[in-house]
Amino acid sequence: MSYTFINGGVTAPQGFTANGVCAGVKAATSAAIAKNAKDDSPAPIPNGKRDLALIACDKPCAAAAIFTKNLVKSDTIYVTQKHLENGVAQAVIVNSGNANACNPDGYEKAEAMAKLAADALGIDETNVIVASTGVIGQPLPLSPIESGVTALKDILSKDGGTNAAEAIMTTDTVKKEWAVQTVLGGKTVTIGGIAKGSGMIHINMGTTLSFVTTDAAISSEMLREALVAAADVSYNMVSVDGDTSTNDTLAILASGYAGNAEITEKNADYDTFLEALTAAFKAVAKQLAADGEGATKLLICNVSGAKNEAAAKTIAKSIICSSLVKAAMFGADANCGRILCAIGYSGADVNVNKIDVAYKSAAGEILVCQNGCGLAFDEAKAEQILLENEIEILVTLGDGDGSAEAYGCDLTYDYVKINGDYRT
Amino acid sequence: MSYTFINGGVTAPQGFTANGVCAGVKAATSAAIAKNAKDDSPAPIPNGKRDLALIACDKPCAAAAIFTKNLVKSDTIYVTQKHLENGVAQAVIVNSGNANACNPDGYEKAEAMAKLAADALGIDETNVIVASTGVIGQPLPLSPIESGVTALKDILSKDGGTNAAEAIMTTDTVKKEWAVQTVLGGKTVTIGGIAKGSGMIHINMGTTLSFVTTDAAISSEMLREALVAAADVSYNMVSVDGDTSTNDTLAILASGYAGNAEITEKNADYDTFLEALTAAFKAVAKQLAADGEGATKLLICNVSGAKNEAAAKTIAKSIICSSLVKAAMFGADANCGRILCAIGYSGADVNVNKIDVAYKSAAGEILVCQNGCGLAFDEAKAEQILLENEIEILVTLGDGDGSAEAYGCDLTYDYVKINGDYRT
Repeated sequence: MSYTFINGGVTAPQGFTANGVCAGVKAATSAAIAKNAKDDSPAPIPNGKRDLALIACDKPCAAAAIFTKNLVKSDTIYVTQKHLENGVAQAVIVNSGNANACNPDGYEKAEAMAKLAADALGIDETNVIVASTGVIGQPLPLSPIESGVTALKDILSKDGGTNAAEAIMTTDTVKKEWAVQTVLGGKTVTIGGIAKGSGMIHINMGTTLSFVTTDAAISSEMLREALVAAADVSYNMVSVDGDTSTNDTLAILASGYAGNAEITEKNADYDTFLEALTAAFKAVAKQLAADGEGATKLLICNVSGAKNEAAAKTIAKSIICSSLVKAAMFGADANCGRILCAIGYSGADVNVNKIDVAYKSAAGEILVCQNGCGLAFDEAKAEQILLENEIEILVTLGDGDGSAEAYGCDLTYDYVKINGDYRT
Repeated sequence: MSYTFINGGVTAPQGFTANGVCAGVKAATSAAIAKNAKDDSPAPIPNGKRDLALIACDKPCAAAAIFTKNLVKSDTIYVTQKHLENGVAQAVIVNSGNANACNPDGYEKAEAMAKLAADALGIDETNVIVASTGVIGQPLPLSPIESGVTALKDILSKDGGTNAAEAIMTTDTVKKEWAVQTVLGGKTVTIGGIAKGSGMIHINMGTTLSFVTTDAAISSEMLREALVAAADVSYNMVSVDGDTSTNDTLAILASGYAGNAEITEKNADYDTFLEALTAAFKAVAKQLAADGEGATKLLICNVSGAKNEAAAKTIAKSIICSSLVKAAMFGADANCGRILCAIGYSGADVNVNKIDVAYKSAAGEILVCQNGCGLAFDEAKAEQILLENEIEILVTLGDGDGSAEAYGCDLTYDYVKINGDYRT
């Protein structure tokens, strides 16, 4: 293991500052919904939650991003895609409280938001990444963003990363920030990031909102390769509710300040960088799943012995997405039938007579199914294992050596409560 | 419209009798789980719920069935498939409380169950359809079935259909039975049936447990064609929770007593028969969705203007399966973003700038999205519409003339409660 987790977030790498403020986007959006207005008039008083973040580097960076695969996309994505065509970016402006999706004026407003940030920072607007998250189909109020950017410009700092992490939260209960260090050719390289959950999260279709910075010297092409590879086994293996957001954006900026020899091909330095990035992304994936809407438990489904990696991924995701499995885990019910059922309908090629299933947690491990048949097991012990807040579902097949891990959470009363009335 | 719904169920067609009793399968299974035993010892006292049904005809019938597409199947399905190879059946034996799936002795017990019914009725055991529903991975207790069949033999009657409908219920809150009549060549033909819900129900992968009888004269080949065609737009368009059961079986028996000219090809009589069967199946599909686990509302998603029928089906099912849409409907929240989101990730080819969305119920209709953008609408009126217990989600696209309808239900606290601890 050639990396170390450290304290910090998106400002940990050299060259980056950030901050987050309460600009009033959430308040203005809620007020407009309350009076049935599709206008963008600001609310009288911001509601106190941070809802606008700015991340900036003191020089242009190599940059890359991946986006939701949903056909219905926020216009912020189209603007960001255009701005990243040259693989260069210097800042990220992102609001919560309003997704700026499914609005007639979304594209113009996303451009205007990037221009506000660019003007405040004195940089080219095509070097700004723009993102939004929140209510869909309600026009984005621009005036709070205008005053928010003005405020942010003066308070960008190395200490502001945490405020930025807070400002992109929607139904998240904890902010997500992380930093990891590795060494490339004797030079210490830092990678840091922030991410938001916690609903409309589904496997293999993109990701959530997450912004990553690094001081590694790396080309935008290699940055993109690493981003896709790391996301594929982390963000893309998380499911909270099976719904893929319209706004998913995972972006990375590399300042090069670490002074390592620039990574321009898949060499040993690339492998080391990818290893650290992947470890960080897997940690974030677990955080996203654990803080899924209403979740009380993190579920980690580990599949081994599958025909190949693709089959292992399909099976792990099918289990983690099953409403019945998720509800059973909430109830600490060691129901192996639901695991077998989810394997059977996954679409993967499986020998159903060679399926073993076990549950594992800090309280122990218990085998509940062997060779496709339910076993007699100690229900009390099983319940004790499943009462922990981090549960591993271990599936061992007899089909080959493919393996995969997927991350999810239990289905709870609170998920229903949160989503029964999200907008108001 | 050339059919009429009438009172009655599986015994409405000429030639069929049925009944259901409390044999003790549920009690024995629960008792075995409580003592961590993978044995099939009977519980001391049956718990009062009917859990064994027998349906019989006084002569061998043309018969057909379709089954779950889950790779993990109850052994009852393999036995029934074998028994239906010749397209002939005379009786159905079915228990609830235990799925007889994922057990080492499942096949032998499914065969034994068929033989018990055959011996009691004095018919060939290969003319018996056998099915089970309930807990997976717990050995089936045979002795309650043995005593139950003995009891059933003496009480089979034209009035026993309702008891049979009750005996196949699991978490259903209401029994499902129906009958419909049509006229073929001057002869009145009756079709009747029973079905169970209400969890592990998902689109396009098979169906739930449902047994259908008719006195029409029709070949087993045509019966099968009609069964598949009718199921495709009804049972296969219902989703409660996205999980496909291991035990799904939809079987039909035709006695021929109506005296119509036997249907052996796709002629006008076939069309009339199919029309009646389809209308009945669609009514059942709505019943299954409305009684989905924990449901308070029936959701009917109607998609029109799609590129083709396949696209319309894909979109309708994506909406009906979205946890976020289901939770919003529970909360009477007219969130159009979640509908657009589910259309966007459905995988269907859609012009996202030509999507209209409206909600409709007994309280009125309201357009919430036009040309892919959220509209200003009266939130109070929208809430009033969504507080009804039958909601239509109307999606109008601008891509062609494909249309489809899918059936689902809201996601509620009670779904979580029911599935948090299902087995005990």
